[in-house]
Amino acid sequence: MENLIRVAVDAMGGDYAPAEAVKGAVAAVKEKENVEVLLVGKQEVIEKELSVCSYPKERIRVVNASQVIETGEPPVAAIRGKKDSSIVVGMKMVKQQEADAFVSAGSSGAILVGGTTIVGRIRGVERAPLAPLIPTKKGVSLLIDCGANVDARASHLVQFAKMGSIYMEHVVGVKKPRVGIVNIGVEEEKGNALVKETYPLLRECKDINFIGSIEAREIPAGAADVIVTEAFVGNVILKLYEGLGATLLSKVKEGLMSSLRSKIGALLIKPALKATLKSFDASQYGGAPLLGLRGLVVKCHGNSRETEFKNSIIQCISFKEQGINEKIGENLKVSNEEKKEG
Amino acid sequence: MENLIRVAVDAMGGDYAPAEAVKGAVAAVKEKENVEVLLVGKQEVIEKELSVCSYPKERIRVVNASQVIETGEPPVAAIRGKKDSSIVVGMKMVKQQEADAFVSAGSSGAILVGGTTIVGRIRGVERAPLAPLIPTKKGVSLLIDCGANVDARASHLVQFAKMGSIYMEHVVGVKKPRVGIVNIGVEEEKGNALVKETYPLLRECKDINFIGSIEAREIPAGAADVIVTEAFVGNVILKLYEGLGATLLSKVKEGLMSSLRSKIGALLIKPALKATLKSFDASQYGGAPLLGLRGLVVKCHGNSRETEFKNSIIQCISFKEQGINEKIGENLKVSNEEKKEG
Repeated sequence: MENLIRVAVDAMGGDYAPAEAVKGAVAAVKEKENVEVLLVGKQEVIEKELSVCSYPKERIRVVNASQVIETGEPPVAAIRGKKDSSIVVGMKMVKQQEADAFVSAGSSGAILVGGTTIVGRIRGVERAPLAPLIPTKKGVSLLIDCGANVDARASHLVQFAKMGSIYMEHVVGVKKPRVGIVNIGVEEEKGNALVKETYPLLRECKDINFIGSIEAREIPAGAADVIVTEAFVGNVILKLYEGLGATLLSKVKEGLMSSLRSKIGALLIKPALKATLKSFDASQYGGAPLLGLRGLVVKCHGNSRETEFKNSIIQCISFKEQGINEKIGENLKVSNEEKKEG
Repeated sequence: MENLIRVAVDAMGGDYAPAEAVKGAVAAVKEKENVEVLLVGKQEVIEKELSVCSYPKERIRVVNASQVIETGEPPVAAIRGKKDSSIVVGMKMVKQQEADAFVSAGSSGAILVGGTTIVGRIRGVERAPLAPLIPTKKGVSLLIDCGANVDARASHLVQFAKMGSIYMEHVVGVKKPRVGIVNIGVEEEKGNALVKETYPLLRECKDINFIGSIEAREIPAGAADVIVTEAFVGNVILKLYEGLGATLLSKVKEGLMSSLRSKIGALLIKPALKATLKSFDASQYGGAPLLGLRGLVVKCHGNSRETEFKNSIIQCISFKEQGINEKIGENLKVSNEEKKEG
């Protein structure tokens, strides 16, 4: 079949490797006709998992990689030292255009380092941001950057805003996505040095829908579609989102179990509550893309299950079909030319 | 009565001024014998509120102030221009030692500016941090700094750690409070330039119980008692805490109202759920202290009610009785001398 999109999947990454990655691959090729999955990792182990699944055989291939990068390993040393690891092998396939994208639930550090050093950035991109989708009251917002490169410059944040807008518009399907910069107040004169420098640059961007500063309080309400911030703050927001959600829900559960009356009530509300809270679960959108690379790299949660792997693979299809990288390259090329002229 | 602790309260600040501030003052003098409250603001208005309350008359005094600083006013201009505002008059009383503390639910900006310019910092304190208590699974943690002065230096953060430890130990009553620095990973080599510079300085502090980096995910679980961070990140954490809590609870409510079955369940669980979630409400601890000033300034939420005002006033009593400022002054004096010797 022509125009088959090839997604390499790290079968060895994540808490439930290889089972859940393999199941996600199987589910993806069953759901979408135009995708081929290349499962990267220990061949024997993967084939054993596959042997109990039924799926269109011609669209899942196993690519052997004998090594595994563990979560605790120092990323740079791991990427350099483990040439036959599933992460290095999968990323090399993207670099050599044997795959369009790479999906992994493995070591975040290794994925971020490998993305830049193996896959490489699109010409004109200064830094490749990690941009997870986070759930909001209205749906979902893109939080960009949550990567490992802290102490960003204003020019990085401007590129994040542009890349994030393109992604939200063409992959998630939000028309004219509202771009906000995380700040400690909404007035333009507020903020730290980085925000004050970035704010006027964003206001000047004609190709994004910049709505100004947003306070962290407004993020869960869905006040912006693209939430621009440097990686330290982005990381704090992402982690606090996870931690606070878990703590609040455990508090609610504790309350439900505190008396006989409330236990009976809990049985009655369970299905409705489960359905509502599911809408606040980001895994339905798949993992976080690492944007601005020559190819796509998607980082899934360490605790990803079949659904997140499947949706991450499907995300890669939209990404490729919509020509996101071509759009990013074109946009930044124009911006850089304008800068030279200006 | 001797040893009466005098707390000036801004009767004009907050969404429910003057009623809730006045009620809080009345509740405080009824609960505690050793406090005198000075209600600062428009005399006539305050006296009208007081006229319907019963309380020990000799322990509430009204101090007239004809002006009010509104929330939206530029703080520096407001503090300079409105010499007869409740905030300026109340803070001057602290400066002139006519009051031991000042409590206000008014403009955050004006309170922060006034704290430093009118009340003034303790000798040796480089910056006065705003340190709210945030609820956790285990109780409460001090988040220091959430003020308006961003782009902090490492030496500021070290002082925040020390002041925060003294406060948590002697006002909140946590023995050997665990001090953590907000970071994007737990390894020492992780972090932005500021965190990398501060980490070894905190490790060297003999008078605090430094437990290293904490990720934002761990904050709601109560992983540290004193959470050290610069004000931009602190502000993001504080605001996201509020915003995400509100959004998640509204999601839960939406789930409860979605079917007849769940509505009946909701009636049964309501009392238990309310009690559990109340334990996750920080207002029982009162407002946020602005530490390191010659006197105490406490910033309450704009939407504070009687209970938060009352608890803020009671907080001032512990603060004074425990000699927190003397302890801070002594601690920083010793640290500065050690620095000179070293």
